[in-house]
Amino acid sequence: MLTLDYANCLADRVGPHGLDPARLQPGAEGHAACAHLTGLLARSRGSGWERWRELPFDPMRSSHLAAVHAAAERRRGRFDNLVVLGIGGSALGNSALQCALRPPTWNLLSTDERGGRPRLFVLDNVDPAHVGATLDFCAAHGGLERTLFNVVSKSGETAETAAQFMIVRAMLADALGPRARENVVAITDPERGTMRAICDAEGYDTLPVPEGVGGRFSVLSPVGLFSAVMCGIDAAALLDGAADMDRRCSDPDLPKNPAAMLAFLLVELGTRKGKPNHVLMPYCNALYGFADWFRQLWAESLGKRVDRQGEEVFAGFTPIKALGATDQHSQIQLYREGPNDKVIGFLEVGDFGRDVPIPAGLGVEAIAYLEGKTLGTLLNAEKRATEYALVESQRPNFTIRFPCVDERHVGEFICLWEVATAYAGLMLNVDAYDQPAVETGKQATFGLMGRAGYEKHLRRVEAALVETPHKM
Amino acid sequence: MLTLDYANCLADRVGPHGLDPARLQPGAEGHAACAHLTGLLARSRGSGWERWRELPFDPMRSSHLAAVHAAAERRRGRFDNLVVLGIGGSALGNSALQCALRPPTWNLLSTDERGGRPRLFVLDNVDPAHVGATLDFCAAHGGLERTLFNVVSKSGETAETAAQFMIVRAMLADALGPRARENVVAITDPERGTMRAICDAEGYDTLPVPEGVGGRFSVLSPVGLFSAVMCGIDAAALLDGAADMDRRCSDPDLPKNPAAMLAFLLVELGTRKGKPNHVLMPYCNALYGFADWFRQLWAESLGKRVDRQGEEVFAGFTPIKALGATDQHSQIQLYREGPNDKVIGFLEVGDFGRDVPIPAGLGVEAIAYLEGKTLGTLLNAEKRATEYALVESQRPNFTIRFPCVDERHVGEFICLWEVATAYAGLMLNVDAYDQPAVETGKQATFGLMGRAGYEKHLRRVEAALVETPHKM
Repeated sequence: MLTLDYANCLADRVGPHGLDPARLQPGAEGHAACAHLTGLLARSRGSGWERWRELPFDPMRSSHLAAVHAAAERRRGRFDNLVVLGIGGSALGNSALQCALRPPTWNLLSTDERGGRPRLFVLDNVDPAHVGATLDFCAAHGGLERTLFNVVSKSGETAETAAQFMIVRAMLADALGPRARENVVAITDPERGTMRAICDAEGYDTLPVPEGVGGRFSVLSPVGLFSAVMCGIDAAALLDGAADMDRRCSDPDLPKNPAAMLAFLLVELGTRKGKPNHVLMPYCNALYGFADWFRQLWAESLGKRVDRQGEEVFAGFTPIKALGATDQHSQIQLYREGPNDKVIGFLEVGDFGRDVPIPAGLGVEAIAYLEGKTLGTLLNAEKRATEYALVESQRPNFTIRFPCVDERHVGEFICLWEVATAYAGLMLNVDAYDQPAVETGKQATFGLMGRAGYEKHLRRVEAALVETPHKM
Repeated sequence: MLTLDYANCLADRVGPHGLDPARLQPGAEGHAACAHLTGLLARSRGSGWERWRELPFDPMRSSHLAAVHAAAERRRGRFDNLVVLGIGGSALGNSALQCALRPPTWNLLSTDERGGRPRLFVLDNVDPAHVGATLDFCAAHGGLERTLFNVVSKSGETAETAAQFMIVRAMLADALGPRARENVVAITDPERGTMRAICDAEGYDTLPVPEGVGGRFSVLSPVGLFSAVMCGIDAAALLDGAADMDRRCSDPDLPKNPAAMLAFLLVELGTRKGKPNHVLMPYCNALYGFADWFRQLWAESLGKRVDRQGEEVFAGFTPIKALGATDQHSQIQLYREGPNDKVIGFLEVGDFGRDVPIPAGLGVEAIAYLEGKTLGTLLNAEKRATEYALVESQRPNFTIRFPCVDERHVGEFICLWEVATAYAGLMLNVDAYDQPAVETGKQATFGLMGRAGYEKHLRRVEAALVETPHKM
């Protein structure tokens, strides 16, 4: 079970930069907020845009697991490369699961070392050098015939994914002719939309993006699970962990509800203590991908312009990813002596699955203290030392501890932050499920790319960004 | 030549969130600052901690290029794997150069496809699962005999690098006996320190960390160049680019000096306009590693506690890395509608070296506008659209444009930010070359790891972080 230690967010540790612990006592506002929020979320759960909360539970759980396993089983041993075509919520969860639950050398291993499972590439951009090199590699190693493309797009109209898909579709048709459809699995809307129509026309196998599950809350749906299962990750255990955490996070009693506690701490520190920058800093390379996943969840859900009694308020917090111990040599100078505007969230791991002893025998005095220890001991000592150093300079921080990094604990972690995000949205009075501010850029892109009907957007861009002498 | 477009940082574009363009006019303070700063830096250049500025020029240039090429040439074709053991400034530049100038699939390619050059692993952490998997891979693929370890540490006492080195040294001795020394190249202090003594005792080949060149300013010294040259990167062209940019950045005339302009804009927006968060967002996967390199340079150089007339001031800015277009689907909602506390720096690329056409033929109306275009066109349209969307919501931003991503322009980019950092340090009145705040954590780590003489630090950690009930 994940644990949350938030002592370093309180005033007895970090002085005026922390919260008054009395506010977390029975009867005080933290408790009241928790009881209120859990009640609100209990009433809305499973409806509207909160259907993501039902992903770990039947009937969605069984139906998705059966579909994902069947789709993966049919392709077992037939592919050397699996390429996910997606962006944002259709890519971040896939990358994060792979980073957490497969070795960092996965793509470098031989087919046997991978147990016959494919390499995984998540193509979440349209950089031509990057896309080109990845597709070239797949064509040369394994070949297109043994490369499976998993296109993930609810609508099919996301420009980046659509462009990638058009390229891949033509490439496959050239190389494989009518057999090309065997090399595509689409995850899309089960009933409507552009990608749905394409899949029906081309005869692709599909898995659903379930109704009412937005991109950034979709990792525990087929969106995240199909590529994971293809690479041998245990999807059922992910959902088990999420279900366990969901129960903890439904408790109206604040000291038992880690999502409500996280939301309360971060919203209060963010809005009342001048700490709107929220760092997630795993002391564990495998969890670094989840820092990226968190960035989207926290930024896009909470970063909203809201009207508060006629006044325009820019709500939200800036999520920042960092990696321990690496970033001690990059960011800690700033975190301790720069502006006191951050809350640092550590992720700590008990058992890394393996450890590496530091052998004795070099006999150099200045570093002899390391002999006979292990890398895991050193890494966790560095984490504790950094925690101490931050407290010493009154920088609030908290620790989420993983007993080990496995499917169950990763599932817990996903659910913890998803529910915390929902609570934080309610506390900030923002809609955690929309992203209205990305529309302007989409329309401008359409204009610049010459899409019919968007000429006025092109004219607006050209008028706003006319050449100036402020260039060198 | 790189260009800098800063029109979107000015009030005529982003209203009260931008700088008054009059402040950049001849006779106004921006010009005065530039003349003053270039004068100061001209007087200190090549001395003290500013010797990094001489790296692109003789005599250091020729001496380093000769040493690095000779060391690389002696090992040509003999190694399948090159593993850099380093952290912070001894790793970030190496990773960034590789990311920028080699294909993203480099480590996956066959030896022939790599032109006989080695795979590159930069082990910049002590995560046991990560280190263990990487070393296992090298032992199994190519074998330890064909794995070269490049340990980078000026002192040899950095805990993470020392621990890695002790592990590797014992592993090599086991596998190769007295021939083990052939598999190590150390980059360290040419005259003194723990690693120097080890190298002398073990008979390792070494390259210098030049005197007066701090870690975060060392990428253009042998620290960054050796692994680059081993992988086929043109070190001379990197230095040529840096030398060109150094000349531009020495100009006392503000509109001709891009480093002074960047420093002036970011310091002014950061300190007077409430924008202390500085995002670097390349629209180019290859340049994403340099966003990480920038993070260290900007954070550790400027994040300093300073005494201003008896008052404690926490100076500095929070650097944030982002990737376009990917992060449009993650961070742009926040950047447009969250707190207006950021300056966004775009990196734009003219020619990606290759482009990928988006074929016609799918014939689906909603995405037909993409047919016949290319991925490069789409990516750059998205950049321009995002720039427009940010201006539209009064978020200041600037663009550094790379004609293409090659050694010369990367060298320019490195020098641009290094000089900008020096100017920003002078403007903020901080020492850009120290990092006093990391000492507390180092001492605490020594205490926790049982190093003799650090018992009192252990006691302080234990007293400060005693168990509390604030845990769940």
